[in-house]
Amino acid sequence: MRPVIRSVRLGLVLFSAMQAAIVHGETVPADAHAIATRGLPPSVVACQACHGPDGEGNLPAGFPRLAGLGRSYLAEQLAAFASAKRQSPVMQPIAAAMSTQQQTVMAGYYAAMASPPQRVVVVVDPAPAQAGAWLAARGRWSADIPACSQCHGAQGLGVGDSFPPLAGQPAAYIVAQLQSWKHGTRPPGPQSLMSAIAAKLSEQDVNAVADYYAGVPAAAVGPAASTPRTTSASAFEPPPETAMPAGEFGKIVSQGEQIFLHTRQNAGAYVGNTLDCAGCHLDAGRRAGSAPMWGAYVSYPAFRSKDGAVSTFAARMQGCFLYSMNGKAPPLGDPALVALESYAYWLAKGAPVGTKMEGAGYPKLPTPALAADFTRGRHVYDARCALCHGPRGQGQVSGGQPAFPPLWGPQSFNWGAGMHQVGNAAGFIKANMPLSQGDSLSDQEAWDVALFMDSQERPQDPRFADSVEATRKKFHDSPDSMYGRVVDGHLLGSGRP
Amino acid sequence: MRPVIRSVRLGLVLFSAMQAAIVHGETVPADAHAIATRGLPPSVVACQACHGPDGEGNLPAGFPRLAGLGRSYLAEQLAAFASAKRQSPVMQPIAAAMSTQQQTVMAGYYAAMASPPQRVVVVVDPAPAQAGAWLAARGRWSADIPACSQCHGAQGLGVGDSFPPLAGQPAAYIVAQLQSWKHGTRPPGPQSLMSAIAAKLSEQDVNAVADYYAGVPAAAVGPAASTPRTTSASAFEPPPETAMPAGEFGKIVSQGEQIFLHTRQNAGAYVGNTLDCAGCHLDAGRRAGSAPMWGAYVSYPAFRSKDGAVSTFAARMQGCFLYSMNGKAPPLGDPALVALESYAYWLAKGAPVGTKMEGAGYPKLPTPALAADFTRGRHVYDARCALCHGPRGQGQVSGGQPAFPPLWGPQSFNWGAGMHQVGNAAGFIKANMPLSQGDSLSDQEAWDVALFMDSQERPQDPRFADSVEATRKKFHDSPDSMYGRVVDGHLLGSGRP
Repeated sequence: MRPVIRSVRLGLVLFSAMQAAIVHGETVPADAHAIATRGLPPSVVACQACHGPDGEGNLPAGFPRLAGLGRSYLAEQLAAFASAKRQSPVMQPIAAAMSTQQQTVMAGYYAAMASPPQRVVVVVDPAPAQAGAWLAARGRWSADIPACSQCHGAQGLGVGDSFPPLAGQPAAYIVAQLQSWKHGTRPPGPQSLMSAIAAKLSEQDVNAVADYYAGVPAAAVGPAASTPRTTSASAFEPPPETAMPAGEFGKIVSQGEQIFLHTRQNAGAYVGNTLDCAGCHLDAGRRAGSAPMWGAYVSYPAFRSKDGAVSTFAARMQGCFLYSMNGKAPPLGDPALVALESYAYWLAKGAPVGTKMEGAGYPKLPTPALAADFTRGRHVYDARCALCHGPRGQGQVSGGQPAFPPLWGPQSFNWGAGMHQVGNAAGFIKANMPLSQGDSLSDQEAWDVALFMDSQERPQDPRFADSVEATRKKFHDSPDSMYGRVVDGHLLGSGRP
Repeated sequence: MRPVIRSVRLGLVLFSAMQAAIVHGETVPADAHAIATRGLPPSVVACQACHGPDGEGNLPAGFPRLAGLGRSYLAEQLAAFASAKRQSPVMQPIAAAMSTQQQTVMAGYYAAMASPPQRVVVVVDPAPAQAGAWLAARGRWSADIPACSQCHGAQGLGVGDSFPPLAGQPAAYIVAQLQSWKHGTRPPGPQSLMSAIAAKLSEQDVNAVADYYAGVPAAAVGPAASTPRTTSASAFEPPPETAMPAGEFGKIVSQGEQIFLHTRQNAGAYVGNTLDCAGCHLDAGRRAGSAPMWGAYVSYPAFRSKDGAVSTFAARMQGCFLYSMNGKAPPLGDPALVALESYAYWLAKGAPVGTKMEGAGYPKLPTPALAADFTRGRHVYDARCALCHGPRGQGQVSGGQPAFPPLWGPQSFNWGAGMHQVGNAAGFIKANMPLSQGDSLSDQEAWDVALFMDSQERPQDPRFADSVEATRKKFHDSPDSMYGRVVDGHLLGSGRP
């Protein structure tokens, strides 16, 4: 069943430049359309000369699409061109000749345009040999390279204002941008994410991923050479994706992987929110320090005080669905559980049964010097987390599909999930957040922001009994849980968020 | 919950010597009672002088009980004393002075007596530190020493004619016999079982097991030093019994072990015959080449063509109950399955997940030079197997409990069990049979006797569909299965055995 390559014609509505001008007649100064179509002689050529009348770009020439990109993103780029922080012999004199006001107006003009219709090659289940598609969909976590899709959306359509679309952009443009970040001729971008990632990409990687997003059919180049992992070098190595078993068993392992990556799509009956397993278990459950499946698999059956009983691995996964996915437990023996267990078993190939493996679970942080603090946590959140997870923890969407996971609110994990415990969350955040920048927060910052996240309202604990107070007493009698505590005058757990 | 030491007063009926004489007035020549009570002057002293009026023996003096022992066993001992093959300064002249006829009569006289009431210390769940009880109940398979109870019955009450009781015999007597076998002053016994086993016991072992069966309270001597395994030295070593985990998890692991050892007693709702898991998985599921649990645990989930699906370890165990135990599958999540899975997980501690381990499963024998043959198999069976499993494969009972497992018939595994496949059975037999004498049969003998065993009637395949022919076609279409074939004019699978 893999790889499946689907050609998707995006059902986007074609707006003409005329319509755009009309739609925005009230808010866009009248000269925006004039600048786009005629320029500001003598220095500013008409934008459409290169970027097309619909802002669609010029694929053969390598000029990027502007239509539908984030307003602030476009404004920042014009400012960066003008100051030559983003180096471009073409754009520098154009941007420099525009006033700040004109830059802002043009950013709004193109942001308001819908993307033109385009063909995007979407590889749903790429094989490792499809190097570009694989980097796009899975990244290379052994080198701390997240999947492009984790920030730019599953189909590369872009997410919010800060993560521009990649799908359909000219390959030459994407290559040039990645090279710019590598060589410091483009500002590092929010949280320096792109400069850090570009530095880790080989020439081959850059070309492959650019070709992929440009819709160029992938050449069979084989998987990129493995880059040594920068952290946790001594951790267990699960089998590479290329070692996926064949035959009937491989089919089930592969199904398990797909459920793990796209949980709602493939096991929707048991999922009550928009999270995926891979949201907390990074790199498809492979990554040390991110509760990897190989570490979990060899740790069960085990007695859990939460259950008051010995839980098998299958029973443990039932808990994930009930709490972390805010859904319901698949019955034991359900094909989804069997597939997930098979996938975890395969990832654990060669791992010693019954041992506490290095990198299993989340790291346990030492108690912080200062008690974790809500207000300090909010500052950390705003500075380091909101970019992706949104200002209110609601996550972000791309192409109608969840892109960044909601951290609280109705689409997040519920009050029974392990991540609602401040210590768990602090360990996860410290090791893994911001995405691909693990260990960049101090322990104190990790504790503070974990407390902030876990002091927000989220779906009720399914074990709810009588009252918040009684439920806290029965299931949350721990300093690690904020359930039943009053924060900012709100009793946590008291209401639908 | 372990160890539990129970003092059991055996509810046996006290027969007086008088009653015995009356009971056997018809069949026992009149002089038996006279010889027992008055002897045959001048050489034969009255038997009861040493062995007591009820044949109960003399514990302080070290004279063994004779009442209730096997008739042929007693006759053989008298003959061996007379010829000095079994050396005894006391018994040699007595036995030599008796005619063969008188020996036979006296053997029958004492065999017909019921055992006198006695206290036997039965340690149901011994701890490894209880050295004698442990040897009695579990043996030391690392040195190919089976448990005493495997041949002499769970309570040491003896099994059939050939395996005399040990419980309540004087410690000095048991010690002297084991020493005799060690030093060759007693015939090696059937299949040389006891001479081989005694040779492997240390002085400490001999004393501990003798004290145990004599009912002497066990001294805490600690487990015997580990003896190097004579075979499969490179196989995986599961954790020693002394490493049994503590706490709630250990409790479940221990329950799993008890189910494994005493399946009907502890999971009776799912068992339809008198087998135990440990009957085919020797040494409580630890032994390499005997489908050890550690080898199985790391091999699941796996695709099984038998199921047409991927089976988890729990699902695989459901099959054991349905087929090998001729019972019904416990539902997934049943405490019995969770306990068994926990026990297997613990035995596999440190074993690499997803690997084919040396010693896993049963060995696969090469195809024999001659096609396996029923008649040759019968000869092997009669010579090497019937002693324990009975002349008709029905097994043997001790104290009302199964002692040796039935190999066919209504109390054995059914036509769906893996052991009904000739190749499986041949591999198991070659590696493990006769008990503690693995690798003593030739490959050809193993194939022949496996074919003989698997050409006997046994409970129906629970997947039975319409007819034997249809069922063979659907589930038994393999040269390895005798189901649906005609042997000795009988269509196998056609009727209740």
